[in-house]
Amino acid sequence: MSNKQEAEALIVFTPSGKRGHFPVGTPVLSAARTLGVDIDSVCGGRAICGRCQVTVAEGEFAKHGITSKADHLSAFSKVEARYDEKRGLKTGRRLSCQTLIEGDIVIDVPPESQVHKQVVRKRPEVRDVELDPVTKLYYIEVEEPDMHNPSGDLERVYKALAEQWSIDEVYTDLRTLQYLQKALREGEWKVTVGIYHGQIRSRQRIIAVWPGFHDKVYGIACDIGSTTVAAHLCDLATGKVVASAGLMNPQIRFGEDLMSRVSYVMMNPGGDIEMTAAVREAINALVGQVTAEAMIDLHDVLEAVFVGNPIMHHLFLGIDPVELGGAPFALATSSSKTMWASELDLKMHPDARLYVLPCIAGHVGADAAAVVLSEGPHLQDENWLIVDVGTNAELVLGNRERLLACSSPTGPAFEGAQISCGQRAAPGAIERVRIDRDTLEPKFKVIGSDLWSDEDGFDAVIERTGVLGICGSGIIEALAEMFLAGIISQDGVVDGALVERTDRIEPDGRTFSYVLHRGEPEIRVTQNDVRQIQLAKAALYAGARLLMDELGVETVDRITLAGAFGSHIDVKYAMVLGMIPDCDIDKVSAGGNAAGTGAMIALLNGKARREIESVVRKIEKIETAVEPKFQDHFIGAMGLPHATAAYPKLASVVDLPASKQTSGSGGDDGSGRKRRRRRERA
Amino acid sequence: MSNKQEAEALIVFTPSGKRGHFPVGTPVLSAARTLGVDIDSVCGGRAICGRCQVTVAEGEFAKHGITSKADHLSAFSKVEARYDEKRGLKTGRRLSCQTLIEGDIVIDVPPESQVHKQVVRKRPEVRDVELDPVTKLYYIEVEEPDMHNPSGDLERVYKALAEQWSIDEVYTDLRTLQYLQKALREGEWKVTVGIYHGQIRSRQRIIAVWPGFHDKVYGIACDIGSTTVAAHLCDLATGKVVASAGLMNPQIRFGEDLMSRVSYVMMNPGGDIEMTAAVREAINALVGQVTAEAMIDLHDVLEAVFVGNPIMHHLFLGIDPVELGGAPFALATSSSKTMWASELDLKMHPDARLYVLPCIAGHVGADAAAVVLSEGPHLQDENWLIVDVGTNAELVLGNRERLLACSSPTGPAFEGAQISCGQRAAPGAIERVRIDRDTLEPKFKVIGSDLWSDEDGFDAVIERTGVLGICGSGIIEALAEMFLAGIISQDGVVDGALVERTDRIEPDGRTFSYVLHRGEPEIRVTQNDVRQIQLAKAALYAGARLLMDELGVETVDRITLAGAFGSHIDVKYAMVLGMIPDCDIDKVSAGGNAAGTGAMIALLNGKARREIESVVRKIEKIETAVEPKFQDHFIGAMGLPHATAAYPKLASVVDLPASKQTSGSGGDDGSGRKRRRRRERA
Repeated sequence: MSNKQEAEALIVFTPSGKRGHFPVGTPVLSAARTLGVDIDSVCGGRAICGRCQVTVAEGEFAKHGITSKADHLSAFSKVEARYDEKRGLKTGRRLSCQTLIEGDIVIDVPPESQVHKQVVRKRPEVRDVELDPVTKLYYIEVEEPDMHNPSGDLERVYKALAEQWSIDEVYTDLRTLQYLQKALREGEWKVTVGIYHGQIRSRQRIIAVWPGFHDKVYGIACDIGSTTVAAHLCDLATGKVVASAGLMNPQIRFGEDLMSRVSYVMMNPGGDIEMTAAVREAINALVGQVTAEAMIDLHDVLEAVFVGNPIMHHLFLGIDPVELGGAPFALATSSSKTMWASELDLKMHPDARLYVLPCIAGHVGADAAAVVLSEGPHLQDENWLIVDVGTNAELVLGNRERLLACSSPTGPAFEGAQISCGQRAAPGAIERVRIDRDTLEPKFKVIGSDLWSDEDGFDAVIERTGVLGICGSGIIEALAEMFLAGIISQDGVVDGALVERTDRIEPDGRTFSYVLHRGEPEIRVTQNDVRQIQLAKAALYAGARLLMDELGVETVDRITLAGAFGSHIDVKYAMVLGMIPDCDIDKVSAGGNAAGTGAMIALLNGKARREIESVVRKIEKIETAVEPKFQDHFIGAMGLPHATAAYPKLASVVDLPASKQTSGSGGDDGSGRKRRRRRERA
Repeated sequence: MSNKQEAEALIVFTPSGKRGHFPVGTPVLSAARTLGVDIDSVCGGRAICGRCQVTVAEGEFAKHGITSKADHLSAFSKVEARYDEKRGLKTGRRLSCQTLIEGDIVIDVPPESQVHKQVVRKRPEVRDVELDPVTKLYYIEVEEPDMHNPSGDLERVYKALAEQWSIDEVYTDLRTLQYLQKALREGEWKVTVGIYHGQIRSRQRIIAVWPGFHDKVYGIACDIGSTTVAAHLCDLATGKVVASAGLMNPQIRFGEDLMSRVSYVMMNPGGDIEMTAAVREAINALVGQVTAEAMIDLHDVLEAVFVGNPIMHHLFLGIDPVELGGAPFALATSSSKTMWASELDLKMHPDARLYVLPCIAGHVGADAAAVVLSEGPHLQDENWLIVDVGTNAELVLGNRERLLACSSPTGPAFEGAQISCGQRAAPGAIERVRIDRDTLEPKFKVIGSDLWSDEDGFDAVIERTGVLGICGSGIIEALAEMFLAGIISQDGVVDGALVERTDRIEPDGRTFSYVLHRGEPEIRVTQNDVRQIQLAKAALYAGARLLMDELGVETVDRITLAGAFGSHIDVKYAMVLGMIPDCDIDKVSAGGNAAGTGAMIALLNGKARREIESVVRKIEKIETAVEPKFQDHFIGAMGLPHATAAYPKLASVVDLPASKQTSGSGGDDGSGRKRRRRRERA
């Protein structure tokens, strides 16, 4: 026996390939720790948490010069059997804290036993994110108080953390201190503490304590949109989303779009306080919903990350947004912010830490920062244009060398507002449109059905959802198809001469409309609708063009359309309308809810927070309002693109109409947006 | 002129003696900064705050080889004249920020212009404390937002702090951020910020902001006693106490002494919450009172420091004190604690930082730590015994090498409780007693009068205040005088044989009493009173003796009696009774409200906080309850001291009676304290 004790064995861990010789009798977890192999543990090697499970890789490993056999480990122990009985252990799995090395062995660490799991990989082009949460749990066994050597209960907790987890210099939140003595006694001197590892390591804080062993810790990633607030509940131990929910932003009752909400504050002193309370209530409702759905205790939510445009950001934090409503559009702060849940009256663990991503500029918010974090243009060599379309479009362009950002006042037309038959993306809204190039007859699809309107069974769709209006993506396709079919000219005029060819074209005052659907209601695209979209797309394009000028490039290598709108439109049609610059069509993609993904990345990885803070500081902020070139580009971009000129790459895949100018510019566009009209005429 | 610009002059600052050559035209304040001369400034050299005032020392300074003349400085400027007109400038004073060096000069920096003023020096033996507050004000001029170079308002505040005050890496409290934009615009881009320079320099935080120039910043030092809560409002810029107030601790309605309050919690779930609310309310009332008296805004109070015994400490922080009510007397924490005023619902600036001194052990609180900080035994070579007498006596013994602490369960007898005619120290209470050695006739003084009871005019005193009872210091003197007059024996028995000599001795059941005052009420000292004081003083002495044993010394070099009780008693009588060990009588002193002084030191000097935290960690904590020697000393200390044996130093100044034993020990002492009696009989 004593001979065996002195013997050594070779252990090799996969997938890391780390290896070393250890005395026979060494626990596998200890060997892993010594070699720096990434194996998780909450209980600190006490066979409670089951996070340190491993498997044996049996066989000959010529590369390592060893033969690995399951019986080169100590026999399955009573402790493991008890764990298996209580919490279940898959066949072949061992608890590495309870398993001793008895001979040469190859040990495989499955992904779920690794601390730094790879998570957030919904789309192949999106970066991998390593799980490295800021808040972690630690199970400790604390010395009981001893009158012969008096010391505070908290100080013995610190001692246990130092001895059992090598964590020094910790501070403690008051509420945890108030509950600590009860927790220690209830847990019979065994407790689990939640530690927030803040930006500065020396300011680690205990933010929660539970009697005995506790292994539930959750975080919430929340995207506060002006229309919708969405929350994802994540298990901070696995990185998995366990529940998601969305709600209409209740601030809508104070104003549909951002500027009308700022106006509300200007007109109603204290209006900001009402709106702050409203959005926090909505968030509380969402937190209640996702925790109920996942059946977890509100107090197990120890972190939350928030993103939103600057006005949402300010209102959420309780900052009057009025400065953002007019030049010079000064943010209260462009830095990230960390605070307690209780400071914002959020209903989760009161000492949960809230992290709000930094805003980039007065019109480019923490949501845009989250999009950058999610997409990672700062990690690429290609020139990447990222566009997040909302009431304002937020644009980011650049690569690892330089990043620039600006916002463009697109207005709400892309969301279906200010369009005669426009409506929100909801069942019954037209979202796809095709127009026959010869007959000029349309067909379309509505949200809630996969049928084209000329297919059998579409009547049932009409019966069920109705055909209620056109949503943002529908109007884009309608206009693009009208352009491709020659119904509207390059300068955006509905061609009245076509009345002779089709009854789909109808006079409409001094201009003409195109009737998309004859029903109740009748759905038509008016000359004014075309003008509204022209204004919006010109603003968007001008912003992109301005950034390209600043960066000194004539083309972009890649385009991502982020946000809900970007996910619904067909990027080809966006390019046909000239919303975005010319680009290889297969390099243009929808980014999905990139802002939400960015929030989740910041939730799951503390280093990502430092990363985006640093990137945001370096982003060059361009204010379109003071750039004369923006006006030039805006006017220049009013027309629809011409194949051979500005859009050679698009022209190679889409049959663009040849250049032709119609007379006049349809001056009476009925638009209420006077500033834009003045610009247009300038 | 250009020649003059290139010339240099010698400047010498007094009292520091710092000197250097500077180009003619250099502002005096700049020269001081360069040389590291301590001159205050809030406005950063803008002739607003007037903190940088200096005077010229005219004459020949052979030592420095210069002739200093007032006209070696630039002429009194318009800016100074404006300051003089607005805020007043004493004759001969110059604003060093506005005054340029034009020739060799000696500049005197008056104490009030120094940042690190010496403050807290109420008694000559108490250490000097340098003013170095944790929270300071900084006036800054902030760049206006610029659309060509967008940045957050907060980030421009940071820039101003870095450029104008060399303060980097600052964080900001949420409430300050919420108000920041309004303050900047109201102050036309000039604001004053209050920065809390926490323990870790890199975690400096802006905790308050005011539009324009603001130079008021206050702190509160608060001593939470079980009977009285006292608060001092200090000007953090000068270190001066501007208002003080005290209130009865409203927790008294839940229990007179500490243990009955803990019992209240044990019997009444939620009782701790009631008591926490009560003491915080009292503190709020005090804060209201001192700020009203000083006519300052509550929001100008940016700091507060608190001390108290462990149970007061826990209840103040909202920690259930029940663990302190029984062995092993575990503190929730023995570390200091810093938090926001809003966390404890205190009504001052909501982001004011509260600092609570560390507790030493389960019975030795933050008040004892404050006493140590005030008296400074850890800075001395002599063995110093510091005794703070309350319901528990807290004792500290040692020197710069070693410090030990313990508490002794003296009970409330020293406060006049459990004494037949005992009462609180208030007008009408007997506080001084003398007994004629021959006639055994007493004379006394009551609080509120300087007359002895046998002097002319004392009838008027009786008329005015009455003679209502005996306070703590009165009972000490009465017993000591009775002992010195031979009325009570060395073992504490009232000598019934003296009935024959004087009618002041009266039978009282099976024992005898001494009548101190025949009136309404009659004031007498009963045998039981003697026993109560014997028990209390034996406990106190045993504690001191235990510490001496642990330290390995037979005598102490110096004794301080801290606290209200210690300030009122005649230390000689305390020694006659054997409350404290033998010591040179001129080395025994009353420490006054040393706990309050310690709180004030911690308020005015951030380094003092680190100092006491470090000292408290090193103090050796002795728990009397588990030391068998304590019981031995306790029993041994029941008797009154004997001149030639234990008290040689006292015997050299006081005529102590010769040793004589009376029969019996007055077994029926009528005491309800059964545990003590068991101890006594053991």
